[in-house]
Amino acid sequence: MTEDLPNPALLPSGLSDVLPPEAAREAALVEAMLSVFAAHGYERVKPPLLEFEDSLLAGSGGAVADQTFRLMDPDSHRMMGVRADATPQVARIAATRLADVPRPLRLSYSGQALRMRGSQLAPERQIAQAGIELIGPDCAEADAEVALLGVQALAAVGVTAPSLDITLPTMAPALLDAAGVQGELRRRLARALDRKDAAAVHALAAEAGPPAIGLTALLTAAGPADRALQALGEAELPPAARAIADNAAAIVAAIRARAPELRITLDPVEFRGLQYHVGVAFTLYGPGSTGELARGGRYRSGEEAATGMTMYPDAVRRAAPVPPMPPRVFIPLGADLAVAAGLRTQGFITVAALSPADTPQRLRCGHILRGTIAAPIEENA
Amino acid sequence: MTEDLPNPALLPSGLSDVLPPEAAREAALVEAMLSVFAAHGYERVKPPLLEFEDSLLAGSGGAVADQTFRLMDPDSHRMMGVRADATPQVARIAATRLADVPRPLRLSYSGQALRMRGSQLAPERQIAQAGIELIGPDCAEADAEVALLGVQALAAVGVTAPSLDITLPTMAPALLDAAGVQGELRRRLARALDRKDAAAVHALAAEAGPPAIGLTALLTAAGPADRALQALGEAELPPAARAIADNAAAIVAAIRARAPELRITLDPVEFRGLQYHVGVAFTLYGPGSTGELARGGRYRSGEEAATGMTMYPDAVRRAAPVPPMPPRVFIPLGADLAVAAGLRTQGFITVAALSPADTPQRLRCGHILRGTIAAPIEENA
Repeated sequence: MTEDLPNPALLPSGLSDVLPPEAAREAALVEAMLSVFAAHGYERVKPPLLEFEDSLLAGSGGAVADQTFRLMDPDSHRMMGVRADATPQVARIAATRLADVPRPLRLSYSGQALRMRGSQLAPERQIAQAGIELIGPDCAEADAEVALLGVQALAAVGVTAPSLDITLPTMAPALLDAAGVQGELRRRLARALDRKDAAAVHALAAEAGPPAIGLTALLTAAGPADRALQALGEAELPPAARAIADNAAAIVAAIRARAPELRITLDPVEFRGLQYHVGVAFTLYGPGSTGELARGGRYRSGEEAATGMTMYPDAVRRAAPVPPMPPRVFIPLGADLAVAAGLRTQGFITVAALSPADTPQRLRCGHILRGTIAAPIEENA
Repeated sequence: MTEDLPNPALLPSGLSDVLPPEAAREAALVEAMLSVFAAHGYERVKPPLLEFEDSLLAGSGGAVADQTFRLMDPDSHRMMGVRADATPQVARIAATRLADVPRPLRLSYSGQALRMRGSQLAPERQIAQAGIELIGPDCAEADAEVALLGVQALAAVGVTAPSLDITLPTMAPALLDAAGVQGELRRRLARALDRKDAAAVHALAAEAGPPAIGLTALLTAAGPADRALQALGEAELPPAARAIADNAAAIVAAIRARAPELRITLDPVEFRGLQYHVGVAFTLYGPGSTGELARGGRYRSGEEAATGMTMYPDAVRRAAPVPPMPPRVFIPLGADLAVAAGLRTQGFITVAALSPADTPQRLRCGHILRGTIAAPIEENA
């Protein structure tokens, strides 16, 4: 090794090794979440990591086009992209390979996505995803199903009492459209809404005229869903905005009917997130400051209505309780291997000595096989 | 859609969508195999899909350098590679992040690898891998452990009676070295061995001189391990080749001691496979014509001795029996959701109607929730 070589431990920014025991935990909770989805009829698909950019960036894929790594295909000499999000790929599969399967079509997936650049808040460039897409129906029941499956997936890995944040990404544009706000004023209003700068929104909305004035009321309405829905109900809204508010109320009602205890917040004029949502957008937060655990919402899957939820296993792992590790049992050289196999069926991890130099301590074992039992090793022995 | 757009179903050669139910089967068997590894003390790591090419292609990574997709890192402006094989990444993790963990170090992994080009026999360019690396020990017991864990992983997913093929990739070079065969004659002999062209090997070995003549005998010795080991024992071998033969005999004996029924073949002069194997190389075949299910063998992990096994989940899925699918139960609108939850704990898949248009037939359900039970739907009903 020379001093000129870069440190081999140094990975590109936003890329990391997941080490023991976290890598095993992440894999286990992905499968636990996918099992919840499977039990509700969501069937797993596995799109490739790479595909032609024409198809990868079509439709909802356009939202991540500038985050997509491109590669030349040495075979076809066409450009390929590495997926930055699985949803556009699932949409492609639904529209092509599964075009003839009756709708509603329920699909699930898990895998890695790569992004060209991280942000200050989210520096990761490799993002594990595990999610569902419900393709075909355009109704509040469908949105409620995917939101609640996100909640159930979290419960399956021990993350209880999450909070569901609902936003209406088309509400602010509908109000701005109704007010005929365009150009620079629209951009400034959008920025003020994005910063939740109530004073600026108020001043700019007054400048824009009546239907935009509702923005101030809606900005302050953000909070617990019931209060926000009441504010939306009382607000003077143009027809397109009223339809968006009614849809939100129907979705909240459908969720409440199935999960009355779930904490739901509603922010009517927030419009962050992946830019392809057309109705409600969902974010699931864990308890405390565990951050965003999942995102989802309604979008167009090719020509079809669709709604979905993407869990972020890396964030879920940080929010989930750490399960106890099975005890490691040292198997001395020449031990009865059938006995070791029996211990594994009881849930022990057996770690075999391969040479006389291997000791329980070196192999990090708290137990040792003695006769037919796994005996705890005394700390002072 | 215009006629000019490429068919969105058309993926680059060697890349494919895995559809229901195969994607779920593949994920389930990966986790079943990783559970076998975990029960034997192999701890999971998850290296990133991308890393700097300096580290990705160092050491054993050099063997897949010409198969590695390269990307410019827009952040550091250094070249990165997409992994074409996980083993070099696990070696990097062992040598850096896990340098202080006592050896033997047992690690496992699963994930996708991408290759720039497929071959006629193996057109796939995205390869699922699930494997183990045993880093530190350099003994027959270690090689036997990884070979047998491959067999046990296959058994865990229902692939019984596999065949373990052992090759000695350093044997032919050792014989050619001992005979002082270099240059064009060595290349021609290597090609003849690769084609198993006994007549050509015989003629070229005669030209090369005494120690190379052993190649003909070893070529015909390929077959059941006991017969091949006997032929190796009887052959006149120079010291380096004798050491390789003795090592193979010790590994076969260690495997036999633990799995007397396993079918083992030995091909002393075959040297196919990843080019980084330094001792034995393993290939696991399924019964019948199911093809290669796993590869492994001994290699150098940085400065350390190592041995490992990589399962190919895609091939394993084709070889494994298809498990029965849980029955799908149609949940009518307004049904008791607690009852549906109870059915899921019994192993049923519940598929909820979202609108009156949803019927059991459309949702591909063979059962329907009636009261509190899942009633089979009559074909002619």
